Amino acid sequence: MRKTRIFTPGPTPLLPEAQLAMARPIIHHRTQEFKELFLETRRNLQQIFRTENEMLVLTSSGTGAMEAAVCNLFSSEDQTLAVVAGKFGERWVELCQAFQVPCITLLKENGDAATADEIEEALRRHPEVRGVFIQACETSTATAHDLESIGQMIRREFPNVLLIVDGITAVGCQTVETDLWGLDVVISGSQKSFALPPGLAFMSLSQRAIDKMGANASPKYYFNLMKELKNQQKGQTAYTPNVSMVVALNEVCKEFLCYGVDRIISEAATMARCTRQGLLALDFQLLSSFPANAVTAALPPEGISAAELTKKLEERFGVKVAGGQGEMKGKIIRIAHLGYFDTLDVFSILSAIELCLIEMGRKTEPGAGVRAAMLEARTNA
Amino acid sequence: MRKTRIFTPGPTPLLPEAQLAMARPIIHHRTQEFKELFLETRRNLQQIFRTENEMLVLTSSGTGAMEAAVCNLFSSEDQTLAVVAGKFGERWVELCQAFQVPCITLLKENGDAATADEIEEALRRHPEVRGVFIQACETSTATAHDLESIGQMIRREFPNVLLIVDGITAVGCQTVETDLWGLDVVISGSQKSFALPPGLAFMSLSQRAIDKMGANASPKYYFNLMKELKNQQKGQTAYTPNVSMVVALNEVCKEFLCYGVDRIISEAATMARCTRQGLLALDFQLLSSFPANAVTAALPPEGISAAELTKKLEERFGVKVAGGQGEMKGKIIRIAHLGYFDTLDVFSILSAIELCLIEMGRKTEPGAGVRAAMLEARTNA
Repeated sequence: MRKTRIFTPGPTPLLPEAQLAMARPIIHHRTQEFKELFLETRRNLQQIFRTENEMLVLTSSGTGAMEAAVCNLFSSEDQTLAVVAGKFGERWVELCQAFQVPCITLLKENGDAATADEIEEALRRHPEVRGVFIQACETSTATAHDLESIGQMIRREFPNVLLIVDGITAVGCQTVETDLWGLDVVISGSQKSFALPPGLAFMSLSQRAIDKMGANASPKYYFNLMKELKNQQKGQTAYTPNVSMVVALNEVCKEFLCYGVDRIISEAATMARCTRQGLLALDFQLLSSFPANAVTAALPPEGISAAELTKKLEERFGVKVAGGQGEMKGKIIRIAHLGYFDTLDVFSILSAIELCLIEMGRKTEPGAGVRAAMLEARTNA
Repeated sequence: MRKTRIFTPGPTPLLPEAQLAMARPIIHHRTQEFKELFLETRRNLQQIFRTENEMLVLTSSGTGAMEAAVCNLFSSEDQTLAVVAGKFGERWVELCQAFQVPCITLLKENGDAATADEIEEALRRHPEVRGVFIQACETSTATAHDLESIGQMIRREFPNVLLIVDGITAVGCQTVETDLWGLDVVISGSQKSFALPPGLAFMSLSQRAIDKMGANASPKYYFNLMKELKNQQKGQTAYTPNVSMVVALNEVCKEFLCYGVDRIISEAATMARCTRQGLLALDFQLLSSFPANAVTAALPPEGISAAELTKKLEERFGVKVAGGQGEMKGKIIRIAHLGYFDTLDVFSILSAIELCLIEMGRKTEPGAGVRAAMLEARTNA
C-alpha cells in the first residue's frame, strides 16, 4: 500500500479528533452554543500559551496575525527593532516596510540565535526603540532564540519596550512562558503544533500591548484588534470566523490539556534530539547551533544533493520533508517534530533517509541512524 | 430526535462531499498535487463566476477580500462611490475610511435597490470618481441591485471607472455575469452558496483592475493582491492557504459544474419565490422591493415579535433563522436559500413558522403558508 507521511513544519499531520470535528455539520456563530465553545477555547489557549493575557483567534494564516501585531501596535511614529535570523525574521521587516513602521534589524547568520546581550546592546544604542520583533523559533533555519533571557532582560531593563514574539512554530513544542517571561504578544497558527489545517491564527496580548493599541493610527480593518478584542471578550468575532476550525481547535485544546502541554513539549524535545543524533550518525551536518524542538535542519553528507534526497524520499516512500527557504534553498532538508508525531515517526523518517542514501550510493551501515536515535531516546526515557 | 437546521445566510448547511473532504488527511501546499488541484479550482471558480478574469482565493472571510479590493485598487488619491443600501454597503464606507480612500455614498432606504440611472447621475455629478463599490445582494435587507444594467451602463459611459462587486451572498444563487456585465472585481465567500465553512474568500480581477493595482501605495501585506496573483497563477499562494478548505472547495466546484450553475441559480430563485409567497400568505410583509434569491427578509404579522419568533423557532424545532442587523435588529427575520437547500427545506421552514405563529396566538389556517409556497413551486415547475 502507498502511504504518505508529511514531516513538514506546517502543515503537519492532523489530529484524528480534529479531522472528525472538521467534518461535523456547521453551527452558526451568532449563537449561545458557539459563544460558550469559543470562550472555552480562548481560556484553553491561555493555558497552552501560559498566560492570563487576552487571547485572540483570527481567521487567517499566521502571517495575518504578524501583520495585525505590526499595524495595531506601531505606526510611522514608532521605531522598532527586528531580530532577523532567517526568512521569518525578514517577514517582520517586510511588514514594517509595508506599514511604514521604522525598523532597524539585528542580523544573525543562518543557524545562529540572537542573545539577550546583543539585543540589550542594540536597545541601548537605540533608546528610541518601542518594540522588538522576534521569532521564538526561526523555522527557516530550525533555530530557537533564548526567549527566556531575552524576555526577562527586556522587562527588567526596558519596561516600555514591547516584545512581539512569532511563536507560530514554537508554541506547543517549545517552552513559551508568556507571562513569566513578559512577552507582550505571542502568535501561533493552527497548522503547527495544533495539528489542524492552516486557516486560524492565535495571538495573546498583554495589557501593555492593549494600552498602546488604543492610540494607533495605522490603516487596518480586517485585522483591527481593538474591534476583535471587544467582540472576542463576549465570545464573538468581528467578522465571520472559520467556525468549523474553531470547533476542531476546541477539541485539540482539550486533548492538549488532558495530555499535558509540558509532556507534549518534552516529547518534541526528545524527538528533535533523536533526529539530530540520527542525522549526525548518517554524516549530516546540523545547520543550527541553537536547534529548535519544532524542526531540525541539516545539510546532507558530502556528495548528496538535498533536492535529490527530498525528491527520492517522496518518490520511494511517500515521505514529504521540507527543503531550504531563501538562500538555504536546495542546501538543506528540514524535518518537523511539531504536532501529531511520536518517536516511532522519527525512526520511520530516519529509516527512509538511510535507505535513500544507500540507493544514492552512500556507504552507510544499515540501521546506523536509527540506532543513534534509539540510544538517544533511551537516554531521555 | 432533535435535529437542527440552519437557514442563515452564511454559514449555510454544508455539502456532504465538502464535509468529508474537510476530514481528509492534509496535503502539503508546496507540492505538485496541491498545485494541480489549486489551478483546477481556480479554473472552476472562473466558470462559476462566468469570467475569464484572474481568480484569487484568500484565506480569510469575505471581509478580507473586500479590504483587499479597497487597499489594492485605491489610495488617498482616488475618489470612490459606495452604494449603501444596508449594513454591507456601510462596510465599503468603513473600509475606505480605514484606508483613507475618499468615498462618497449613494444611500438607499432599507429594502430599496440602486438603479443604473441613479448611479449614472451620481457619476456625472462626480466625474472624479474612479471606482464604484456595490453589493450584488445586500444581505442585511435581502435586496438585489440590478447589476446587469449598472455594469453595462458603467462600461458604456464611464470606461475608466472600476466596478467592485461584493457578490459574497450572490455568486452561485443569483446571475452574476462578470465578463458580460463588465464587473472588474467580484467577491464571494466559502460559507455562502459554496456550502463550505467560513474561512476562504474568492475574488475575480479584470485586467483593468490589475493594471490599476500596479501603482497602488496603500499599506498592505497579507492582502497584497499583486503578490497573490503572481503566486496563484503558478498554483501557489503567497502565504500558507487553508489547504483542507481548498481541497473541499475543489469538490464543491466540481459538484456545482456537474449539476449546472444556471440550474442551481434557478432553483434558488424558485425557493426564494416560494418563501415569499408562503410568508405573504402568513401575513408577513416583505422588506425588500427588489428581493434577492439568496435570502428573504420579512416583517412578522402585527402583534408578533421577530425576536420572539426567532427564539421560538430555535427552541421548538431547532431551526435557526437570522434576525435583522443594524437598524433592522429585532424587526425582521431572514431566511436563506443559498447553498445546500431544496424546496422541501422551504416547506419545512414555513411549517415551523406556521406552528410557532399558532402557538403564539395567531389565528392561521394550518398549512396556509406551505400551500401558497407549493402553488408557487408548481407555477415554476
